[in-house]
Amino acid sequence: MKAAVEARPSKELLDELMLANKILAKQNVVDAFGHISVRHDKDPKNRFLMARHLPPQMVTAKDIVLFDLDSNPLTHSDKPQYSERFIHSEIYKVRPDVMSVVHCHARPLIPFGTAKGAKLRPMFHMCGFLGCGVPIYEIRETGGMTDMLIRTAALGKALAASLGDKNVVLMRGHGATMVGESIPEAVFRAVYATENASIQMQAHLLGENREVEFLTEEESAKSSRGRNVPRAWSLWKHEMTSKS
Amino acid sequence: MKAAVEARPSKELLDELMLANKILAKQNVVDAFGHISVRHDKDPKNRFLMARHLPPQMVTAKDIVLFDLDSNPLTHSDKPQYSERFIHSEIYKVRPDVMSVVHCHARPLIPFGTAKGAKLRPMFHMCGFLGCGVPIYEIRETGGMTDMLIRTAALGKALAASLGDKNVVLMRGHGATMVGESIPEAVFRAVYATENASIQMQAHLLGENREVEFLTEEESAKSSRGRNVPRAWSLWKHEMTSKS
Amino acid sequence: MKAAVEARPSKELLDELMLANKILAKQNVVDAFGHISVRHDKDPKNRFLMARHLPPQMVTAKDIVLFDLDSNPLTHSDKPQYSERFIHSEIYKVRPDVMSVVHCHARPLIPFGTAKGAKLRPMFHMCGFLGCGVPIYEIRETGGMTDMLIRTAALGKALAASLGDKNVVLMRGHGATMVGESIPEAVFRAVYATENASIQMQAHLLGENREVEFLTEEESAKSSRGRNVPRAWSLWKHEMTSKS
Amino acid sequence: MKAAVEARPSKELLDELMLANKILAKQNVVDAFGHISVRHDKDPKNRFLMARHLPPQMVTAKDIVLFDLDSNPLTHSDKPQYSERFIHSEIYKVRPDVMSVVHCHARPLIPFGTAKGAKLRPMFHMCGFLGCGVPIYEIRETGGMTDMLIRTAALGKALAASLGDKNVVLMRGHGATMVGESIPEAVFRAVYATENASIQMQAHLLGENREVEFLTEEESAKSSRGRNVPRAWSLWKHEMTSKS
Repeated sequence: MKAAVEARPSKELLDELMLANKILAKQNVVDAFGHISVRHDKDPKNRFLMARHLPPQMVTAKDIVLFDLDSNPLTHSDKPQYSERFIHSEIYKVRPDVMSVVHCHARPLIPFGTAKGAKLRPMFHMCGFLGCGVPIYEIRETGGMTDMLIRTAALGKALAASLGDKNVVLMRGHGATMVGESIPEAVFRAVYATENASIQMQAHLLGENREVEFLTEEESAKSSRGRNVPRAWSLWKHEMTSKS
Repeated sequence: MKAAVEARPSKELLDELMLANKILAKQNVVDAFGHISVRHDKDPKNRFLMARHLPPQMVTAKDIVLFDLDSNPLTHSDKPQYSERFIHSEIYKVRPDVMSVVHCHARPLIPFGTAKGAKLRPMFHMCGFLGCGVPIYEIRETGGMTDMLIRTAALGKALAASLGDKNVVLMRGHGATMVGESIPEAVFRAVYATENASIQMQAHLLGENREVEFLTEEESAKSSRGRNVPRAWSLWKHEMTSKS
Repeated sequence: MKAAVEARPSKELLDELMLANKILAKQNVVDAFGHISVRHDKDPKNRFLMARHLPPQMVTAKDIVLFDLDSNPLTHSDKPQYSERFIHSEIYKVRPDVMSVVHCHARPLIPFGTAKGAKLRPMFHMCGFLGCGVPIYEIRETGGMTDMLIRTAALGKALAASLGDKNVVLMRGHGATMVGESIPEAVFRAVYATENASIQMQAHLLGENREVEFLTEEESAKSSRGRNVPRAWSLWKHEMTSKS
Repeated sequence: MKAAVEARPSKELLDELMLANKILAKQNVVDAFGHISVRHDKDPKNRFLMARHLPPQMVTAKDIVLFDLDSNPLTHSDKPQYSERFIHSEIYKVRPDVMSVVHCHARPLIPFGTAKGAKLRPMFHMCGFLGCGVPIYEIRETGGMTDMLIRTAALGKALAASLGDKNVVLMRGHGATMVGESIPEAVFRAVYATENASIQMQAHLLGENREVEFLTEEESAKSSRGRNVPRAWSLWKHEMTSKS
């Protein structure tokens, strides 16, 4: 039975979530489609927050919905919700380290999920988070012929299994999902995975026999630490707040 | 003999048509060239609406012309009209399901109509509408050596035949034409066909032996339904109205 | 001996020339470099007009210089002039049909002047003006090892000979020069030659054995006529004047 | 022991350095990462100036730090500094001709530092400064498996040795560093090296057997002189100051 009174998320968390929606749009990671969620800061084990069914760029404070980990909306239940909220809830169920999830159709990532033999790998130190591997989720294995959307807990569970303990999972014929220990980290990974795809594409075309020298696992692991996320976030926040 | 009094189209339809002109320009589907039409909401079998000869971005309410299905302008007859209005009228004649038509020279689509053996196919679930096939229209078959424009009913008829019951037809050495059951759907297909072309191009370059895993026909058909069109339209409308 | 009193160019021509400078910058045909000239409307056989040594985007009414056909500045002689004004004067000497000349380093054109075996050819009906052929100028043939610039009448003469009776000449390791019967036509050719290069590049990568179906000479010739130039110009003018 | 009183850099130099930070961001040479430094105009042998740890776009006058040539901050020592300031100090130690250094992760340059056999070479006369050669720095040779950053004097020294007497050095899996005799020249080289990479990439794809006709060494040397830097700088300054 759920508690009679739900704790309210902090204003800081809600502001960060709204900002993240707008940053993802500004950075061309999302268009009208895609979404970002975060665990509730007062009840991280049982609740997460995400906008109702809206283009990310249009999300305002009053559009943030409270969900349980079965993707039931506990507020705004009279409004349409994202069909694919199960991406978020099923990842939160099996990844206690993950605080925030981004789902997107960023264009440069799509060829890496559909071209035969393609494999997204870290081109430079900003993308060390790709070095532990980037699995590709094939919805046909669980769902057969679908509309490609993660519309059920079962499909979400399969996607979470495909993600495993990694940071990014590509989705064949669809897009990608990335996770982080915070909203800024999830957004950072979405932006830089996209950047990596663009330049890796070019590197294969440029290299003899398509050969490219990627970061090693050790280089990747080492370059994934440090101050990159807060520095990028400070700029994105600055760009968003200084133009209005 | 045509009726003495023509019914006036609704203000909503005219507003939507003007907005569509500007959205197509903002989304780089059209530049100074290209056009969008819609069937008259009060007389859909016999009349359609489209701007007079103007770049889409410059179209205002007073520039919308009423046409019969032989592409005769019933208003603004003292002004120059698009030479290629026969694209629209000939499609309306044979496709009662089509309510709106877009013609454009979107850059990423052009290589798919001119490169030997190229075939536009659905890369992701946003583009399921491509899954039923994308024919290529060759104007030489009907017109021989021309200026490439659909200047006559005969050429328009041949283009409509090439389109058949599909959603998009590429035009060799020229551009593309797409149709929809509404203005937002026709615009959506123009925007996302263009996106699909860009990422399909990259996927062929990335894949071993250029192989790419496209959506199957069944996946395409299933992913063509749903809430995509209104969601994208809501963002595009928001972008247009919130900046002025 | 030159006439004691020079006729003044019309205000319309000066305005069009300033506007063209800004349009070329807005369309990414020029960056800080490149220039556009026009024959003097009162003395077209002996005089032409072009800005003094400035980035095109910064050109104002007071920066327009009067030149004779030996590229001597008859006004603003105390200011630095473009080193490459001989491109313009030498073309005017041998091409009485040409009223305006654009020189630029538009990025997509440069590979077509430097890659082995590349040949710029018309991809779509907007670029019929390329159908008569696009020569490549090799400065080494006249100048040997140079700084690549057309700094002398002799080099300008060689460039004009390479252009011949065509509309566009590519310059190896440098850029391109295009001509027209008016300022809008020269600008149109600069913008659309650049567009053509981008999509032709993609078409070769997409086509089996790099094969592409270009416009034939007849299609090119036919599609070069018509209302394209004024329609594009009307939009570019609108964009420039409606934002200030 | 350091002097009791440090001379203050000129206001002109500080303004130019702030402007350069913003230009590099506007030109997409840097995003949240990258930095530019300049030797102190009153003490060029012993001091240089660079922002504290901030995205370049956010740098203001009060954020400029004074460093000695061992990369010790002599002001703002309570604030975080760029980890990679050793790039700058170690180059200044061995290159008395260099007055300014840019470090960046400009996207088009990264494939040229990672793709097998790739070699950045001058495509057009704007990039003659590449003609003397563009070495690639491999951090593994000095540092083994690292986080890719130039965090120590030893790594900075190795990078400076790799740069040698050239103008640009690519850094495998990381980015690039370029130098100049002034802030505008270092910025110019950063912008145009990036432009060159984009078009060289395309030229290889377009040319038969990937062959491209580059500028020769003599052409490169000759085209590196002249008025290009101040002309580009005048436009970039104009763009920055005319929009605020």
